[in-house]
Amino acid sequence: MRNIETCISPELIHLHDLTQKTVVVVDIFRASSTMVTALSNGVRCIKPLSDLDECRNYKNKNWLIAGERNGQQAEGFDLGNSPLSFLGNAFAGEKLAMTTTNGTRAISLAEADSEEILIGSFLNLQATVDYLQISDRDVLVLCAGWKGKFNIEDSLYAGALSLTLGWKHDCDATLAMEAVFQQAGENLSFFLEKASHAKRLQNHQLEKDIDFCLELNRYNAVVHLDEGLLKVKPAAAKQRRLSPEGNSLQS
Amino acid sequence: MRNIETCISPELIHLHDLTQKTVVVVDIFRASSTMVTALSNGVRCIKPLSDLDECRNYKNKNWLIAGERNGQQAEGFDLGNSPLSFLGNAFAGEKLAMTTTNGTRAISLAEADSEEILIGSFLNLQATVDYLQISDRDVLVLCAGWKGKFNIEDSLYAGALSLTLGWKHDCDATLAMEAVFQQAGENLSFFLEKASHAKRLQNHQLEKDIDFCLELNRYNAVVHLDEGLLKVKPAAAKQRRLSPEGNSLQS
Repeated sequence: MRNIETCISPELIHLHDLTQKTVVVVDIFRASSTMVTALSNGVRCIKPLSDLDECRNYKNKNWLIAGERNGQQAEGFDLGNSPLSFLGNAFAGEKLAMTTTNGTRAISLAEADSEEILIGSFLNLQATVDYLQISDRDVLVLCAGWKGKFNIEDSLYAGALSLTLGWKHDCDATLAMEAVFQQAGENLSFFLEKASHAKRLQNHQLEKDIDFCLELNRYNAVVHLDEGLLKVKPAAAKQRRLSPEGNSLQS
Repeated sequence: MRNIETCISPELIHLHDLTQKTVVVVDIFRASSTMVTALSNGVRCIKPLSDLDECRNYKNKNWLIAGERNGQQAEGFDLGNSPLSFLGNAFAGEKLAMTTTNGTRAISLAEADSEEILIGSFLNLQATVDYLQISDRDVLVLCAGWKGKFNIEDSLYAGALSLTLGWKHDCDATLAMEAVFQQAGENLSFFLEKASHAKRLQNHQLEKDIDFCLELNRYNAVVHLDEGLLKVKPAAAKQRRLSPEGNSLQS
């Protein structure tokens, strides 16, 4: 029996055993959605960094730098944290250093003990599910949350992932989030209108980002951490053909 | 506008501001259900204690002592953590010292900063709602969880409380748990069959405890912490008449 569990905040990660597990890091609004979009649009690799200054230093090495704090682009950075910036292969071939409020911190927390780190988003849900099904590892979904607190969009992803995988499990958080995802139904945007982070982004006039981040299975990429760099996993890219507007989620 | 928020684990309590708030501590299986039941069956007061030995010392002061660790009665204690032990006014007039794995710890965490602490359970949901409606304080639901992790039955209570209060809020955890409670519908037992703690109790043949703890509005008591002792709040007891099998929850 394969197992899936959900850690609903990075502050609770010490309660989970990560050894020999695949950790799927998720920060729907917007870090993980942006990472998947960038790599699906030709960006060669992404260096996730917790520290703003450390990220800024990559500019001197001719990397593109993307930085966000509290939903706003950080000063002196090429880009903020919008997935839309990368559409149309706008930065194909570039190397990207990236730091965000919650997402990159979650990755660094998972890095020490886990066997493998994937980046999850609704945009590549089915591709990630397909990969996990043929892998033999148990799965922990690590929700980036908002400054340590429970965050509904990341947890919704955990529910969607678990329902799509269809594995038995005994994780209460996963069970709850499956119920939330089922309750939200097909209209994630409508459901998330009341969510706190969606409201924050709406205040910054980022509604288009919200809608984009909630699109299911736009990309076929499995994104993993490879020696400290986020890349598309090559084998998975060959398994399935790209179906940009496909939606194979059955819930 | 009155606000309600949910802290889904005691490990995240430092992220919440408790000042001037009513904290509703909830540990459905079984500490908070047992506290409400004991006090509704004539127990004079309950001293909640985190430490097993400190609790044991109350025996010498002629208190009844109840102690549980990992779902089992602790050695040398008069009682474990079953609400059923207190039915029929079995220990009316007694003073009770009580320690449990998760519940009493949650109370002591909330004690320092909050304005008021209530004990929440499905057994006294409506009574608690009625009291909160006439109070003027914001509410934080503190879920005891299981050894720091998210726990579905405590979070379900948070959803039920918030839906019954009907206040606007911008707490993602509360929003999610409202959806879970709505998804569970009227059959909480069926929904919780898959929950991890319910399974633990089933292994100890405590199905009757589970069913009892999920009963809605059996008691009309509002239970609060008064100078370190849990007691029934007298004013609330006068407001409504006892309706043992009543169920006024509208969801």
